[in-house]
Amino acid sequence: MSGTTIDLDPSWSIGDKIHGGYLLAEVVRAALEGGDYPHPLGVSAHFASAPDPGAADVEIELLRSGRRVEFLRAHLSQGGTHRAEVLITAGTLPDEAPRYVSADAAPPEMPSPDECGRSIAETPTGGRIGPALHLDMRLDPATTGWIRKEPTGQGVVRAWIRPGDGSPIDPYWLLIAGDAPPPVTFDLGLRGWVPTITLDAHIRALPAPGWLIAEQKAQVVGGGWLDETCTLWDETGRLVASLRQLAGYKEV
Amino acid sequence: MSGTTIDLDPSWSIGDKIHGGYLLAEVVRAALEGGDYPHPLGVSAHFASAPDPGAADVEIELLRSGRRVEFLRAHLSQGGTHRAEVLITAGTLPDEAPRYVSADAAPPEMPSPDECGRSIAETPTGGRIGPALHLDMRLDPATTGWIRKEPTGQGVVRAWIRPGDGSPIDPYWLLIAGDAPPPVTFDLGLRGWVPTITLDAHIRALPAPGWLIAEQKAQVVGGGWLDETCTLWDETGRLVASLRQLAGYKEV
Repeated sequence: MSGTTIDLDPSWSIGDKIHGGYLLAEVVRAALEGGDYPHPLGVSAHFASAPDPGAADVEIELLRSGRRVEFLRAHLSQGGTHRAEVLITAGTLPDEAPRYVSADAAPPEMPSPDECGRSIAETPTGGRIGPALHLDMRLDPATTGWIRKEPTGQGVVRAWIRPGDGSPIDPYWLLIAGDAPPPVTFDLGLRGWVPTITLDAHIRALPAPGWLIAEQKAQVVGGGWLDETCTLWDETGRLVASLRQLAGYKEV
Repeated sequence: MSGTTIDLDPSWSIGDKIHGGYLLAEVVRAALEGGDYPHPLGVSAHFASAPDPGAADVEIELLRSGRRVEFLRAHLSQGGTHRAEVLITAGTLPDEAPRYVSADAAPPEMPSPDECGRSIAETPTGGRIGPALHLDMRLDPATTGWIRKEPTGQGVVRAWIRPGDGSPIDPYWLLIAGDAPPPVTFDLGLRGWVPTITLDAHIRALPAPGWLIAEQKAQVVGGGWLDETCTLWDETGRLVASLRQLAGYKEV
């Protein structure tokens, strides 16, 4: 076990809580620093409580190191309160083109970024939406009826996303982008916070520079729980990551 | 932290290694035993090395207990060698019908179980396929061209599955069923072992008695890695679980 401290930048908060994707990127970066493998391939996080901006303690355990991958665990806490537990399988991302891509893994048809609406940076009550400050995110209007108070009833959100703050496009950034689109619950007529309970990410390739396409979909929303899978493609149409969440919602 | 020992039944081995879904079911059962919440809702496992049949040590840590869920971690080892790390979010599965189900979350069209082929219980070289002894699994012939030496090139396998050994149909059993279908690589013309590196499961509802329908699909196969998502529906057509893997393969 080794311990380190990370500093969670308040500009990444949504309201008064830190964005989950940013948090995860910082934890995974700290865990891989100085290790034998450069890239996260598989990341699994269970979020026990919402983190505050500021310092956070990360305990890192190297579980096993192999020829092709290594396995790590990170335990995140603040003031002794457990925030998140993260498992990381690290390795080296492949370069070559895939040998099989399923029909449903092709990027969706989208209007151009200029035809899509820029995401807002404030909640209706004036709270900060940190990711909107750091990302240039353009939402497909076909999936944002809720902004015009006409929810479509479809459990899908599509967006163009690129760094708005000069961040390098690396695997850590994919963890942020894959948790950036607004929850699909808004277009199902549900308001309110959608806390992520578990998040599992597959990082599949290094993204080309430029825009990412994000498509976030739910399969089942019921009994206070929903799944959301966010698939990310780079500008060449290559599937670069897929993040899957189990999240909670409240009927409001 | 608390420690316990589980006994991995050799009849659940594939060749000389224990089936991942069975292993996971045993670990999650041990972690939830005596706890405040009856069901696993989200499970994330990273598999560091293939477990042998026989005794295995499980260290269990209760990370945080909340009003609606609790968070646990289990560390599995054998003779001091790390086998798997498992995160579990436990709670109570909802009873009510979901408020939203996406079009792609409906069960697939399948020939009847009697029109599907029973899965074989031996590898081509005479090794044991333990799950085939414990499960009654009928594979949709449209997805098993590889058995007739005519791989279809499609990354999908469909099956009917029910316990063949009197096991109760509970959430633990869903972890087994969701890892039971043969890998989609076979119908892509790839032979050889497909070791699971990470597996995350969403358990969404208690299954009705009877058959389950399983559909396992890959999106991207390339550079030695593939994803596989296995969706499970009960006989009423309700989506009861979805398990997603990152696995390795070798070009053979």
